[in-house]
This record gives sequence, structure tokens and C-alpha cells, in this order.
Amino acid sequence: MSQIISVEALRQRVEQVFLRAGMNAVQASPLARVIVAAERDGCKSHGLYRVEGVLRTLQAGKVSGTAVPVVDPAGNGALVRVNARGGFSNAAFDLGLPLLAERARDLGLAALVINDCTHFAALWPEVEAVTGHGLAALVMCPSYATVAPAGGSRPLLGTNPLAFGWPRPGRDPYVFDFATSVAARGEIELHRRAGKPLPEGWAMDAAGRPTTDPDAALSGAMMPFGGHKGSAIGTMIELLAGVMIGDLTSPEVLDFLGTTTLAPCHGELVLALSPERFAAGRAGDPFARAEALLEAIEGQGARLPSQRRFAARAKAEADGIALSDAEVAQLDRLLASGPDGAR
Amino acid sequence: MSQIISVEALRQRVEQVFLRAGMNAVQASPLARVIVAAERDGCKSHGLYRVEGVLRTLQAGKVSGTAVPVVDPAGNGALVRVNARGGFSNAAFDLGLPLLAERARDLGLAALVINDCTHFAALWPEVEAVTGHGLAALVMCPSYATVAPAGGSRPLLGTNPLAFGWPRPGRDPYVFDFATSVAARGEIELHRRAGKPLPEGWAMDAAGRPTTDPDAALSGAMMPFGGHKGSAIGTMIELLAGVMIGDLTSPEVLDFLGTTTLAPCHGELVLALSPERFAAGRAGDPFARAEALLEAIEGQGARLPSQRRFAARAKAEADGIALSDAEVAQLDRLLASGPDGAR
Repeated sequence: MSQIISVEALRQRVEQVFLRAGMNAVQASPLARVIVAAERDGCKSHGLYRVEGVLRTLQAGKVSGTAVPVVDPAGNGALVRVNARGGFSNAAFDLGLPLLAERARDLGLAALVINDCTHFAALWPEVEAVTGHGLAALVMCPSYATVAPAGGSRPLLGTNPLAFGWPRPGRDPYVFDFATSVAARGEIELHRRAGKPLPEGWAMDAAGRPTTDPDAALSGAMMPFGGHKGSAIGTMIELLAGVMIGDLTSPEVLDFLGTTTLAPCHGELVLALSPERFAAGRAGDPFARAEALLEAIEGQGARLPSQRRFAARAKAEADGIALSDAEVAQLDRLLASGPDGAR
Repeated sequence: MSQIISVEALRQRVEQVFLRAGMNAVQASPLARVIVAAERDGCKSHGLYRVEGVLRTLQAGKVSGTAVPVVDPAGNGALVRVNARGGFSNAAFDLGLPLLAERARDLGLAALVINDCTHFAALWPEVEAVTGHGLAALVMCPSYATVAPAGGSRPLLGTNPLAFGWPRPGRDPYVFDFATSVAARGEIELHRRAGKPLPEGWAMDAAGRPTTDPDAALSGAMMPFGGHKGSAIGTMIELLAGVMIGDLTSPEVLDFLGTTTLAPCHGELVLALSPERFAAGRAGDPFARAEALLEAIEGQGARLPSQRRFAARAKAEADGIALSDAEVAQLDRLLASGPDGAR
């Protein structure tokens, strides 16, 4: 048994849940949009499942649902700076995006810094929003301290996602978005619930010994992807998207929250680069040349990242999204219950 | 038997070799500096060993030893653009660096694009030059097509190095610089010479099957580090530091040269970011906060990248560099032989 609902109808429903929970429209609307975008794209881990986490974080007082983000006048030159004022990152990103795109087109490249936000969504919605302006995007943020640096034994780095996008006129963009840990924390949780051991190399226990036991992993540390290389990239993300932008690093996030069950509070760094400006005066059209490269990858039978997501999206947009009875019941309950609904 | 020589004396000697081979001083001086810097830092793979490769590439007519790089007026806004005019990247980088640093301080971040260069050195000398201006650096370039994309079976991507630096006032910077393949191509060559099998997961043969045979690997393809994540980063480098900057991608480099025994011809992308500008108006000094993070990494017994290199440097600067008899004889021969010395 399930209910089929259109993407837009589901977005409105989730937005209503957030409005009933006391959020303002500035926050509720973009938050509902990214959660439903994940559900639409078949990314259940960032989909409806996150609604309860949002409400839990609101009720814990760790995020403001009524904040109105502001553009910080200290952002000038190639820097656009938006302060989320303790709200979710999504409204802050929407406010900064047109300014970022304008600066990147003017100057060739520009950065959007989001400060004082709670960030809980995947990065690809933001990457795709930048590529929608004909710009390449490189996006990163810290997380909670759950990953040991290569050669270390205790959680220090976050799962620190790195995401990139390249615009492909008339097609879905080239997009990747991944954790710099071997696995996302949610994957360890899924193994725990299923009573299955972890693959080797994912995690260590609290004593710093390799483990395949999900419980031991959750009280120990996750491993960075690609050994010392992934560890170095995760460290770079702490430096650029934590320290450099004057916002929390992953160990500071964990100190602030005291738990990994609430959405993390930190900043975010979005770089936008204009292929037209970078390629100006050089032979060849960068967009056409990129197609030749990407077609050569696919011509080997290799898949480009995000293709499964784009296929799920096309299907959901044509046929709607199938919700389980439990998902329908949860939304109905939250819609009926008002500001205390998530208790 | 060996000869001890000071860093500066060795630099002068290598510079003389290049001048005798017909290079101009604009090219010879920075090229000698980076080769000797690698030798000094114990990076033999980018050290004196490369002198013959430089001479071979000159004699093949695939690089100009007398080119004088120019700043391209098409570089404006946050973009600095230097055309190497078919020479080595090093002189072009030296020309662009002060402009890059000035723009990054003015605007918060800036990019240096080097076009039409032959690039054969590691990226860390350039990263360290940027951090020397108090700026963070992110540097990347393509290479030759020797790496199969994840899920593919044939060489397409380069070993595409990614390098990053964070300035640490009064100390050596935080620097990483690595290939986005599992191993550098030189490491496979070293296994071949030693008659040793490769570790699992480094390479595939010409039919796309996993192999541990170095010869089969050299006629097949190398694997990206970290599976699909490293493959995605390698692809990003082709797009940003090849296609976007209007310069050759790794498959185009191989088409142009027809071999991997000559130094590769392509462009390079250097991003510089000002921590002072990015952190302006926020609580905490970014340099002090970075130290807390880096000390926490080392406090777990994990090593920061580049530490072995910095230790070798300190020793070489104090005690000089030990050259083998073969290395001394090679330099003597090249110094005596004039413009055709490398034949």
C-alpha cells in the first residue's frame, strides 16, 4: 500500500509541517524544497526521513526556525557573505546565490560564505543551483567530529562532504557530492539496524583498533576515504570551510551540540567559477570540450556520478513520488499536531 | 663515495646545465630551483633525475627553452592569466605569483591560470610560494592519459595532482600534494625495475583486467585512488584545469606528445584564498585556530603531510646535499657538453 503524490504537492505538505512547527516561510520553503528534492531523487537518507531531525533540532533550541538571513556587508570583492543568524543554511544560500553568480560572472570566480547556520542537507542541491547559472561549483563544509585522521585513533575530522558541479547546457550537470569518510555515518547505522557486520576498512573501535562491529564503530571512529589522501582533503575542508571562514570546525560542532543526533551547526563555503571567463580568448568552447571528455568516460562503460539520482528524478517528475503508509501517516500526524508536533 | 654540495651550489650547477643546453635565464633559473628543491627535500622522483627529462623534451622540440612568458591582458577581475608561450611552467608561475597574491588580498580570492606550458615539477613548490604570501592555495593540473575512470577499462584521466597549502606563520606550512591515481606512475616503473609485483588495486592490463604485473600495468591503465571518489576528483581536474582554462586535457596531452617519456604540455590552475579576508569580522584568529586543529591531529600520533620533506630540507640546508658519484659524473658530463649535451 502506498500513496502517489506529485513532487510539488509533497513539497507543499512538508512546508506546511514546518510552518505548523513555528518556522517562518523564509526558512520553511527552501528547507521543504531540498528535503523533497532528495526524496524525489531517491536519496532516502536526505529525504522525508530528515523531517523529524529538523523538528528535533528546533525543539532542542539548537537552530532558529524564525531567523531571517542577512547579507553581511563585510563580504566584498570576490566574497559574498551571508549570515544565517542561527537558522538553516538553505534560506541563507538562496539569499546569497544571485549575488554569488553576479560576482563570479563579473570577476571570473567568487565565493559565497554562509556563517552561523545549521546545515543538514546534501550539497548537491546547492551545486546544481550554481550550475543552473552556467557556473562551475566547488562546495564543502565540516560536520561533527566522527572521523579519525589517517594514522590517528580518535574522532576529530567530520565526514566533511566535498561536492562539485559542471554545467552541461541542455542536460543534467556533471555533479559529485560525497563524504570524505569511507562511508557515510548513516550507512553504519543501517548496518547496525540490519545486524550486519561492516566491510573491513570502514571504522575503528574506541581503542583505535579496526572493527567490523557497527556498535563499536559508532562509539569509535570512522576512517577517511583513500587513506592519507582522503584524510588530507578532510583536513583541508576543516581549514577552509571551518577555520578560514570564521566558523566552527567538526570538533567544535560536537562540543557545541554534545550529540550527533541533532543537525550540525557550522558554516559552508561555495566557490563559483565562470567557464566563459576562464576560457575567454582560448581556442575551443569549454562546454563542447567537456562533453567530449564526459562522453569518453561513458564510452568506456563507466558511469558519471549522480546518474541514478537524475533517472529517479525524471521518473518522479513524470509519475510522482510513492510514499509508504508509514510516511503518509507521519506527515498526517505532524500536520495535525501543530508547534509541539515533534515531541 | 659521494660528494656533499650546498643547496645553492647545486642550484647554480643545474642552472648552468640548462644554460649550456641553450635555455634562457628566465627559464633556467626557476627550473633549476624547483629541481634542486625536490632533491633537497628528499623527493628523488622530482629531483636531479628530471634533468635528463628536461633536456630530452627540449631536444624533441616539445618545449621552448627560450620562451619569455607574458601576462595575458585577458586576465582581469579575480583572474590572472600568464601565457608560458610554450616554455616551462615555472617561469610563468614566477611572473604571475605577485599579481595573484595582490588580487587575492584585494578581492579575498583569485586564480592564476598558466596556459601553453610544459609542466613537469611537483606542485608543492608553487603551493609553498603562495603560502609564503600568507594565502591558502589550491593547485591542480592534468597530466597524460594513464588512468582509467572508475568503472572503465582504458587510460583516459591523468594522474592529475591535487595540492593544497595553508600558511602557518613562523613554521613550515600545512601542505599536501598527491596524484589522484592510487600510485604515481614512477612507483610502477620502480617496481618494474626491481622485478617486484605491484600491490593489488593499483592497475589493470590492456584488456581492463586487474593486474599486479608492472609491464602489463604500464601498457594498461592505472586506477584512481579511493575508487569512484578519486575518479570524480580526477575528472574535476580535467574539467577545471584543462577544459575550463582553455588548455589540453590528459587525453589531448598524450595525443600531442605521442609518449609519456617527455614532460607533459598543458595548463595549470592555482587558486589563492586570503584567510584574513575570509575571517574578517568573525571571532577568533584563523591562524591560531588552525594550529589547534593541526596540533589535535598530531596529538593522536597522526603525521601531517610533507613532514618528511621538511625534515630532509632542514638537514640539507644545514649539512648540504649528498650526491652519488654517478650524479656528480652526470652533471660534469652535461656541463662539459654544451647545447647537444643530452643526446
